[in-house]
Amino acid sequence: MSSNKGITKRSEDYSQWYIDIVLKAELADYSPVKGCMVIRPNGYGIWENIQKHLDRMFKETGHVNAYFPMLIPESFLKKEAEHVEGFAPECAVVTHGGGKPLEEPLVIRPTSETIIWATYKNWISSYRDLPLLINQWANVCRWEMRTRLFLRTTEFLWQEGHTAHATFEEAEEEALRMIRVYQKFAEEYMAMPVIVGKKTDSEKFAGAVHTYTIEALMQDGKALQAGTSHNLGQNFAKAFDVKFQDRDMELKYVYATSWGVSTRLIGALIMTHSDDKGLILPPKLAPLPVVIVPIWHTLEEEKQVLEFAKKITESWDKLFYKIDDRDQYKPGFKFNDWELKGVPIRLEIGPRDVKSNSVIAVRRDTGEKITLSTDNLKEKLDKLLEDIQNNLFKIAKERLEQNTFTVDSYDEYKQRIEQGGFFRVFLDYTNPEVEKILKEETKSTVRCIPFDAPEEEGPCMITGKTCKHRVICAQAY
Amino acid sequence: MSSNKGITKRSEDYSQWYIDIVLKAELADYSPVKGCMVIRPNGYGIWENIQKHLDRMFKETGHVNAYFPMLIPESFLKKEAEHVEGFAPECAVVTHGGGKPLEEPLVIRPTSETIIWATYKNWISSYRDLPLLINQWANVCRWEMRTRLFLRTTEFLWQEGHTAHATFEEAEEEALRMIRVYQKFAEEYMAMPVIVGKKTDSEKFAGAVHTYTIEALMQDGKALQAGTSHNLGQNFAKAFDVKFQDRDMELKYVYATSWGVSTRLIGALIMTHSDDKGLILPPKLAPLPVVIVPIWHTLEEEKQVLEFAKKITESWDKLFYKIDDRDQYKPGFKFNDWELKGVPIRLEIGPRDVKSNSVIAVRRDTGEKITLSTDNLKEKLDKLLEDIQNNLFKIAKERLEQNTFTVDSYDEYKQRIEQGGFFRVFLDYTNPEVEKILKEETKSTVRCIPFDAPEEEGPCMITGKTCKHRVICAQAY
Repeated sequence: MSSNKGITKRSEDYSQWYIDIVLKAELADYSPVKGCMVIRPNGYGIWENIQKHLDRMFKETGHVNAYFPMLIPESFLKKEAEHVEGFAPECAVVTHGGGKPLEEPLVIRPTSETIIWATYKNWISSYRDLPLLINQWANVCRWEMRTRLFLRTTEFLWQEGHTAHATFEEAEEEALRMIRVYQKFAEEYMAMPVIVGKKTDSEKFAGAVHTYTIEALMQDGKALQAGTSHNLGQNFAKAFDVKFQDRDMELKYVYATSWGVSTRLIGALIMTHSDDKGLILPPKLAPLPVVIVPIWHTLEEEKQVLEFAKKITESWDKLFYKIDDRDQYKPGFKFNDWELKGVPIRLEIGPRDVKSNSVIAVRRDTGEKITLSTDNLKEKLDKLLEDIQNNLFKIAKERLEQNTFTVDSYDEYKQRIEQGGFFRVFLDYTNPEVEKILKEETKSTVRCIPFDAPEEEGPCMITGKTCKHRVICAQAY
Repeated sequence: MSSNKGITKRSEDYSQWYIDIVLKAELADYSPVKGCMVIRPNGYGIWENIQKHLDRMFKETGHVNAYFPMLIPESFLKKEAEHVEGFAPECAVVTHGGGKPLEEPLVIRPTSETIIWATYKNWISSYRDLPLLINQWANVCRWEMRTRLFLRTTEFLWQEGHTAHATFEEAEEEALRMIRVYQKFAEEYMAMPVIVGKKTDSEKFAGAVHTYTIEALMQDGKALQAGTSHNLGQNFAKAFDVKFQDRDMELKYVYATSWGVSTRLIGALIMTHSDDKGLILPPKLAPLPVVIVPIWHTLEEEKQVLEFAKKITESWDKLFYKIDDRDQYKPGFKFNDWELKGVPIRLEIGPRDVKSNSVIAVRRDTGEKITLSTDNLKEKLDKLLEDIQNNLFKIAKERLEQNTFTVDSYDEYKQRIEQGGFFRVFLDYTNPEVEKILKEETKSTVRCIPFDAPEEEGPCMITGKTCKHRVICAQAY
């Protein structure tokens, strides 16, 4: 069994701490195939909760789910010039099937714009067929040289929305709506504050007109792109010849969006909240909100305590709690084990608690111990879970604010960027050369042009050219 | 838009009728890649309901979900002799990744026993780690020469359970438990009666000790294997060297099961219930249980009727109903359209109904029209949906019973097998040659050795050898 003793401290080696958490909390495991990962039940349970809430939010905004083939003819990728340049080098290629070489190689989808727009051509002919609002939950493959569990793996799980619209404005509205859905999900469910904004031209999706992003700040000061939404304009409609007859009887190319988040969110969750003792999960996404650890010395006590635990949980949903009645482990071991696994509330119940009709609740986020009488215990626990959720967001929000710096001098930027954080700077992102210099000299990039930033004017910290607003720069995962 | 006029009659061409339903009810579409399919929102909505109910049933029986890599080293497949023979010829093979040839080819999983047991080796060392009860929802690839939407496609979606146990008996118990879960799901949710039994040695899964199956009877008299559960014995544990230390301190190989159902179930659903007017869906799996078609002639009436429709549905769950207020179509067109799409109940509301505070409910299964006052309308509709569910099961059950024949002479069998149905016959399945003859001469196979059959003794209809029970034979999809 795992114990938290094997976890490297964050202050010693943040990367190793992350890997230790993933492996020892049994969230994921390495796979025999380089770059792929096994998502273990503890990790997959988080993904199921992410799916449940996001799927509801997608349906509330009018989307339906579908499923498109995983295998894409290689020639499809080549139909959109920027797209093939971005994705072809990352593809896994199937050359044989059913014991024979294929006439045309097939790639495993790195993303599904091409196969979906080849299909939409058959489904769209009139303005009455629009908008088409479809999402897909699927696996994708992008060949990666340097991989890291959850954050960057060759195969990963994700959702990809692909919508079709009659006008550029509607597509733009949809792309913006969905990045706000992602922001809401990140903040309300993941308890992870984000900066929302637009990508620069050199950082946008291969084939997009605009890319919007939510950017989170990890505990080590690095940025993590947590979700993106693209207005694809007519690029894919033109590549796959998808036209519709508009109300004015004219044939026009369709406008598109796509948007996605992936199992990378689980990596973001870990690096936002967890500590040297192990995983910390926001209650809204925790597969197991409450664990009960009974404490006893004699067989008589064991019977008493377990009966009491069963009595107080009688009416609770089975997915809400677990009684850890393993008799080969001592309570201290169990405390460590559930701390490591990030269960938000641990209830300790000993013979004294049985007598006083109470339990001791221990918060995973603060370690605080609270004695609760068993009257309306479920309601008290629900309230406590809400407090934990809010506290996690508050702490992360404060960290983000304290680590967002306004800097004007490039020298200062170069000195401070290594220490991490979001940097509000003037930078001439209309010139791709400037971003190239930034990347080469500081290993940092423009994360986004933020939406909610005040209007300001100032000189680009590299070229001195006047800029009309600050952008957010950081080193990123 | 589709209309039911384009559907071939079952009596004319059953295969074409099936394809017409799939395409015109917009359940699925062909894909640019041969043998793959696009599952459209109407079809995927059924799959989501199948997933929801099955997933709950798996969790209630102690299983958790996980995710294993889609790419499997080719050498893994070769470790279990029967397994490689069964699956290698069907594999899609990845030979290039990231722009380079791979050192070892990877196959896209045709099923995941090999990659999962290579992983279980790291997770299992003691009897305390057992049982391990894991399920995965995933896509798989099996190269098929002759494909048919939902029934047989190169890529399909499924779930695959993979469990590990300390004893053969526990594995056997699990394999039997899960085939009964499938039976319950087929009967209670799909309204599809099945015969449950064991596969003969020549029909069992490649690598299994025992394979259990649920077999359904389609309207054309052909059998369809709807789900299987395998006791894999120690075959995969031996192939991947997975041992555990038992309570007696001895090292032993682990026992395994696997079990799965796929998007094929959607094909089974269509061929069990639908008619010449289109799809018929059992209410428990229908993505949309109720559609409301307002009827009006004047703008005044339109306003009245729509207001009334909104009023009566005010407190209903948004996923329970839809008001079809498209004004470019006449009511008659809409009736046809929703019949085609299999919505269990259509509510017609005209100006007269507004005045009398009532609606007309039309059952998709029987076509019966029922006038319902709007008092407690939701409860009445729930009751009606339950009636429809029960009626669909009753009709299908009667059909199965009426088309299950007891036959003793091989001549009679040969004459009648083409007309379809399940045939209860004596057949010496201990001799693979007998099954070979049966297949060659009658295109039929032993579907299963049924569980719940009475004890009987009689001569094999082909060889005359004494058999101790009858088996179920049929031509199958």
